Amino acid sequence: MKKVLIVFAHPEPTSLNHQLVETAVHVLQQDGHEVLLSDLYSMGWKAVFDEQDFPLRAHPQRLSFIEESGHSYAVGRQAPDIAAEQQKVLAADALILQFPLWWFGMPAILKGWIDRVWARGLAYGYEGAGNRYRYGDGAFKGKRALVSVTVGGPAVDYSPRGINGPLEQLLFPITHGTLFYPGMDVLPVHAVYGAAQLSAQGAEVAKAQWAARLERIFDDTPTPFRRQNGGDYPDGHVLAPDIASGRSGLLAHVADQGALAPMKPAGT
Amino acid sequence: MKKVLIVFAHPEPTSLNHQLVETAVHVLQQDGHEVLLSDLYSMGWKAVFDEQDFPLRAHPQRLSFIEESGHSYAVGRQAPDIAAEQQKVLAADALILQFPLWWFGMPAILKGWIDRVWARGLAYGYEGAGNRYRYGDGAFKGKRALVSVTVGGPAVDYSPRGINGPLEQLLFPITHGTLFYPGMDVLPVHAVYGAAQLSAQGAEVAKAQWAARLERIFDDTPTPFRRQNGGDYPDGHVLAPDIASGRSGLLAHVADQGALAPMKPAGT
Repeated sequence: MKKVLIVFAHPEPTSLNHQLVETAVHVLQQDGHEVLLSDLYSMGWKAVFDEQDFPLRAHPQRLSFIEESGHSYAVGRQAPDIAAEQQKVLAADALILQFPLWWFGMPAILKGWIDRVWARGLAYGYEGAGNRYRYGDGAFKGKRALVSVTVGGPAVDYSPRGINGPLEQLLFPITHGTLFYPGMDVLPVHAVYGAAQLSAQGAEVAKAQWAARLERIFDDTPTPFRRQNGGDYPDGHVLAPDIASGRSGLLAHVADQGALAPMKPAGT
Repeated sequence: MKKVLIVFAHPEPTSLNHQLVETAVHVLQQDGHEVLLSDLYSMGWKAVFDEQDFPLRAHPQRLSFIEESGHSYAVGRQAPDIAAEQQKVLAADALILQFPLWWFGMPAILKGWIDRVWARGLAYGYEGAGNRYRYGDGAFKGKRALVSVTVGGPAVDYSPRGINGPLEQLLFPITHGTLFYPGMDVLPVHAVYGAAQLSAQGAEVAKAQWAARLERIFDDTPTPFRRQNGGDYPDGHVLAPDIASGRSGLLAHVADQGALAPMKPAGT
């Protein structure tokens, strides 16, 4: 029995996103797992990271988010809603982020969950050691993460030469920069394309495909992002000359070059 | 005399972000331009896009953001704060987004400005014509856009083979997917690296470099993103076989392959 935290961001109870969450709860519970939910809209989640989040300031005169986040976390004086979500993440064996793709990223309410919950000392600056533990190491090491998005447009726009760019590359700031950064094993993105025009039958197909992904959430091979401390970055900053030789950019940070190619589209 | 709208997202009046905004106001006014400001934190900007944003629902029973956004915009019954920001964007000749890079993207309050202000019928689905006008065409055609970020970490982490990935590629969902999409001419990203450890002298250098960029805001060459309707995408979705032959991914959508290489770092 494992614990899975699902964080999701859509207010409409009959939306495809809610249906996918219901599918996930059902499948995971049937497999004997415990499901934790953070329904950000119904919780009235505070999206904006601001001075109210630091009840006991290290420096009352001048607000530095980095310093106050680290101080609040270290002394255990965080906003209660932030601390509660951190406890859920720490308790979970896997994290699922479920959201509609808005302007090629997360809805603000979910970005604000990351901004606020991913505290210094926890998700970055782990162990007070600066950048020593990141990208494969950190407080969330050993947990799995899965990004599941509904996409209004057609899959072809996200194909290798499609006009939007490949979805896995557009979401690199989330998969690599936000989830792998504090140590999670990140699974390939799951997407339902054409969600704006999905028929009732299409929704059933999408839910069946999603259920199949969930069955394998603890078995599937994570995206092989290169670990900072695995030898590929001798100085902790730049790839060694013999690693991904002659290549640069986002894809150089994946050991298997094909891993960030667009997924086989689901739901179109 | 032109109009420049600066939208920025940091609550601390003495922060580097505020200093860069002050620099921008000063330089642009000195050059004879009019400056419009949207200080999202001091405005108490509502970050979360939700049902309250649709005072007159097309479908009261089930919330579809796409449908209600389009309906509200078409009938002129939007939330007043959304309509006011749209008027500012429409009045402006250039838009500057100034923000600290949080988890390789915008702070939630700024993402929520995009989510809410970038309405259907205006920023997408222009002229009620689906995807006919996008990527170089649309309601914001002829306007310039400039993303200016402060980055806590060092420039080396964003270098061509740096562990975070190149900044211009990480911000592609914003530059290409959010600003070029509704027609803006997007200038190369401006970044101040190492902002978390910047000395007072470093801040002065950063402000001087920023001032120099601003002097050229109406002269610099925009990033040569490929226009959907410029011939490179015959079907409006996928690159023609003879365009960027053999290439795929984000960089294939830039006519000059070097244009999304990392900038010469400022401020480190």
